[in-house]
Amino acid sequence: MKELVSTPRTRLRRYAKRASYDQETIYSIIDRALVCHVGFIVDNVPRVIPTLHVRVGDHIYLHGAAANHMLRTATAGGEICVTITHIDGIVLARSAFYHSINYRSVVVIGRARIVEPERKLEVLRALVEHVVPGRWSGVRKPSPEELAATLVVELPLTEASAKIRTGGPSDEADDYSLPHWAGVIPLRLESGPAIADDKLDPAVALPSHVSEYRVPDARHHGEAKDTK
Amino acid sequence: MKELVSTPRTRLRRYAKRASYDQETIYSIIDRALVCHVGFIVDNVPRVIPTLHVRVGDHIYLHGAAANHMLRTATAGGEICVTITHIDGIVLARSAFYHSINYRSVVVIGRARIVEPERKLEVLRALVEHVVPGRWSGVRKPSPEELAATLVVELPLTEASAKIRTGGPSDEADDYSLPHWAGVIPLRLESGPAIADDKLDPAVALPSHVSEYRVPDARHHGEAKDTK
Repeated sequence: MKELVSTPRTRLRRYAKRASYDQETIYSIIDRALVCHVGFIVDNVPRVIPTLHVRVGDHIYLHGAAANHMLRTATAGGEICVTITHIDGIVLARSAFYHSINYRSVVVIGRARIVEPERKLEVLRALVEHVVPGRWSGVRKPSPEELAATLVVELPLTEASAKIRTGGPSDEADDYSLPHWAGVIPLRLESGPAIADDKLDPAVALPSHVSEYRVPDARHHGEAKDTK
Repeated sequence: MKELVSTPRTRLRRYAKRASYDQETIYSIIDRALVCHVGFIVDNVPRVIPTLHVRVGDHIYLHGAAANHMLRTATAGGEICVTITHIDGIVLARSAFYHSINYRSVVVIGRARIVEPERKLEVLRALVEHVVPGRWSGVRKPSPEELAATLVVELPLTEASAKIRTGGPSDEADDYSLPHWAGVIPLRLESGPAIADDKLDPAVALPSHVSEYRVPDARHHGEAKDTK
């Protein structure tokens, strides 16, 4: 079990029992999500923007238009924060106070840098394959102009932590005799049946990478749970 | 149509056609979400933490333990950012470059303040009812000690913007003749059947607020779409 660096910035202050610095746990939470929230600072005020991400090796990658304000600011020298969150359930306790949420989240802090032009294509390919496995072979690849118009940014996964809550409610001892239902309502991101573009040539068949699509978290559902 | 204040901090720079400053649109996106991501600054570094929220009137409310680091920092005087995101679909274009995500997001910037003790109960009630409508009457209410141990924070919804993408892909004119499938894979947060606590008294029946539970976005599904 490899642990990532835990600093006062990523070490959990509260509910330390919910914390994990295990690399496999952190990478699994990152890999099972489509979207992260990026925190950066503009004129001493924080901004938080959602965006797609992909992990390749020990880095997380973001992308956008070449003029993208978030990515330009994020790579201007200051540190940024990338947070990934799965909402897994609503925990209903017998008292209002002990209601909670089951979740898996990761917080990464570090300095982002712009990826060299010659590496952009491999990252974009990894991103497309992360979002929709099998898709890369079913699309027109980026032209040199499109690649030049795309900014790709990488953040090292060195300073990071995970926080996880699973399981049912914990009530006060005296509350277990109350006549209130208690348990968990599971939540998860689901995909529905694909909707073809109005302009789709009817001769183009629905590919299996679309008809059998599952979001990353559902794709790994059959695996041994490593996010306890 | 009431518009919220648009400043250089919340005005959209790119894809301005996707922006909205309409109060009804912004409030709808907030109200249909369970979780927001809060950005705040610690030692010149941004932090982003997920948490539950509820809107009451023209404020958004967050809560946590009295010693909660995020809430204590968020109310220490500096401005914070609260971002709410719904991921609605994956947009598959004929070219890799025009792949996109359908989403609804809101960014709020402002100064948060601690809510007075005498108003905490009404906010916590609103929060519980936002997450699980009907739940408040089915739980033990907070004791004075539990209320004292809970910090409630409010952020005014004055400086905010929404960003929305809906619909199918937009491809380059030349790409429409390519033999690549194009369209949208819809995504949404779904709830599953409730799981009773192991320690639940079998005499306690499953209440309708649990058996008929729907996440906020699904609850409003029957309404006229105001998020176009």
